[in-house]
Amino acid sequence: MTRPDAPGRVACPSDRARTLAAERLAGLATPAGALGRLGETAVWLSAVQDACPPRPLEDVRVVVFAGDHGVTSHGVSAYPKEITALMVRQFLSGGAGVAVLARQHGAALRVLDLGVDIDPGVLPAEVSTHKIRRGSGAIHLEDALSTDETRRALAVGADVAAEEIASGADLLIPGDMGIGNTTPSAALIAASLGLDARDVTGRGSGVDEATLAHKEQVVAQALVRAGERVSDPVERLTALGSADLAAQVGFLAEAARRGVPVLLDGVISVACALVAEDYAPGSAAWFAAGHRSPEPAQALALSKLGLEPLLDLGMRLGEGSGAVAALPVLRSAGALLTDMSLLADVLGS
Amino acid sequence: MTRPDAPGRVACPSDRARTLAAERLAGLATPAGALGRLGETAVWLSAVQDACPPRPLEDVRVVVFAGDHGVTSHGVSAYPKEITALMVRQFLSGGAGVAVLARQHGAALRVLDLGVDIDPGVLPAEVSTHKIRRGSGAIHLEDALSTDETRRALAVGADVAAEEIASGADLLIPGDMGIGNTTPSAALIAASLGLDARDVTGRGSGVDEATLAHKEQVVAQALVRAGERVSDPVERLTALGSADLAAQVGFLAEAARRGVPVLLDGVISVACALVAEDYAPGSAAWFAAGHRSPEPAQALALSKLGLEPLLDLGMRLGEGSGAVAALPVLRSAGALLTDMSLLADVLGS
Repeated sequence: MTRPDAPGRVACPSDRARTLAAERLAGLATPAGALGRLGETAVWLSAVQDACPPRPLEDVRVVVFAGDHGVTSHGVSAYPKEITALMVRQFLSGGAGVAVLARQHGAALRVLDLGVDIDPGVLPAEVSTHKIRRGSGAIHLEDALSTDETRRALAVGADVAAEEIASGADLLIPGDMGIGNTTPSAALIAASLGLDARDVTGRGSGVDEATLAHKEQVVAQALVRAGERVSDPVERLTALGSADLAAQVGFLAEAARRGVPVLLDGVISVACALVAEDYAPGSAAWFAAGHRSPEPAQALALSKLGLEPLLDLGMRLGEGSGAVAALPVLRSAGALLTDMSLLADVLGS
Repeated sequence: MTRPDAPGRVACPSDRARTLAAERLAGLATPAGALGRLGETAVWLSAVQDACPPRPLEDVRVVVFAGDHGVTSHGVSAYPKEITALMVRQFLSGGAGVAVLARQHGAALRVLDLGVDIDPGVLPAEVSTHKIRRGSGAIHLEDALSTDETRRALAVGADVAAEEIASGADLLIPGDMGIGNTTPSAALIAASLGLDARDVTGRGSGVDEATLAHKEQVVAQALVRAGERVSDPVERLTALGSADLAAQVGFLAEAARRGVPVLLDGVISVACALVAEDYAPGSAAWFAAGHRSPEPAQALALSKLGLEPLLDLGMRLGEGSGAVAALPVLRSAGALLTDMSLLADVLGS
């Protein structure tokens, strides 16, 4: 299938810096492997920065893509769609979980309304300037988006990543806000990995047994309805995604294309990372996983991407909050490789 | 057995604050349980601070107790005892892992020579002012300490905790530096829990199969030699501990007695926490677990203490480094409970 506007294969992180970093790690004044996952993470950071030792992560930007999902009106969530817009206001007032954590750990936070089911004038202009539509389609009954909307959302995400990078971002963190968003995410992961609805459907914000069973039916019906088209990543987003998810895919792929690392959050951002890897092959090498969520589909997607999360705290708040909670762990990894004494120095001291 | 100088049972953290914190957590504008372990951790923080919402942890003190162990001359470690003093210098110069992490996350660091096998004048005076002896006994052949030395080390640890608290510490983090220290720690955990040497002996800084088998023999021999005396926590430290471990026990018990929370590190500090719980019953309620180490005894001790660690990154650097790496996670927990919007506010906004 022709995808003239797809970014194509992205370049790999620096093998040279990775090799230097692995050598530096081995030369630290500590037993081999004593830093555990922090050591491996520091080597990755060197590779994506093309710098050994790695530089401090001083300009971290969290971008939350907000949107509603047609499936929310079909009984897949414990919450009504009206919560999405209320929560967007909480991002702006600083009381949402990710806003609290971003302040705590010195990251900037931006929230964008891609597809919240309210009129454009209701939220501040800078939030809704990239709005694609009011709510995305109920994926078990209809496409989430038109192909044109998908392409526009991908372009918005890419533009936002480009803006953040141009103004100095050295790490990007994606987040998502939208009641019902674990349903299209589960469908995207199933379609990306060739899995059944039962493998990927989880409790989201905490639905009961009956709702879980119904949600699984909705995902199964969506997968049947979408059919074979989903082998193409743009069609996959059109059939099974949403405006906010398509924008996050564009954001992730553009970050990778521009060689800026990304710290992924939970099931939504991992679903987008899987699609981004198909859309712009090689993207996943630029991603690290912030945390493990209780959603079963997240573990399957992480495994496919070859990523092991830094935190495993049972968080299922969404919004990018798990990734921001993991940011200090990533910074610890970098600081250790940069600032710890080398064995050669200790023996010479 | 009479223990006139033991601190006795310590008071519990505040049930009132715990209840208020649990109510506040339930009232946050987020689905029930969405904060995962961060929610439970924030409730613990409220209880130990007797404050809801919890206060920020702004004055965190890391105290590393350093000492050598006679078993190191008997083939239980991949490193010679001379590394201990070299590493103490790295704490002072800022190049040790825990020193890097303490700077990164804004914690103060203090290192004390309790039993390093060098003369008192070799390290700076403030480091060696509390020195108990040069190296502790090889526990499979002789007691680690005399009873008097154990009591003095316990008192030093208590005094140090009292000093740090009096000067403003709102959280204490214990660390240990000493080649061979996982051997007495494994023995203390086995004696505390009634386990066999094979259940508790791990690879420490990374010993090979043959050394691991020998290390297990050393632990087994130490447990047989110590016999029934180890039912008393002071005798347990005398027989199987060391000057640095006994000081850490005193430090932990005094923190608990004074109602100041502690973030535990790996197998050494968890071994000390088990002994502290016997020495000053109720202490463990004041402790949180920073990280899971690969040492098998650590998991057994954590389980007995009812603690679940915040990080699980395969770190085995020691020095308190795993706890300091977990400090931002503890701070995230507190910030979320303190600063997130309440559902009542969101619905009213």
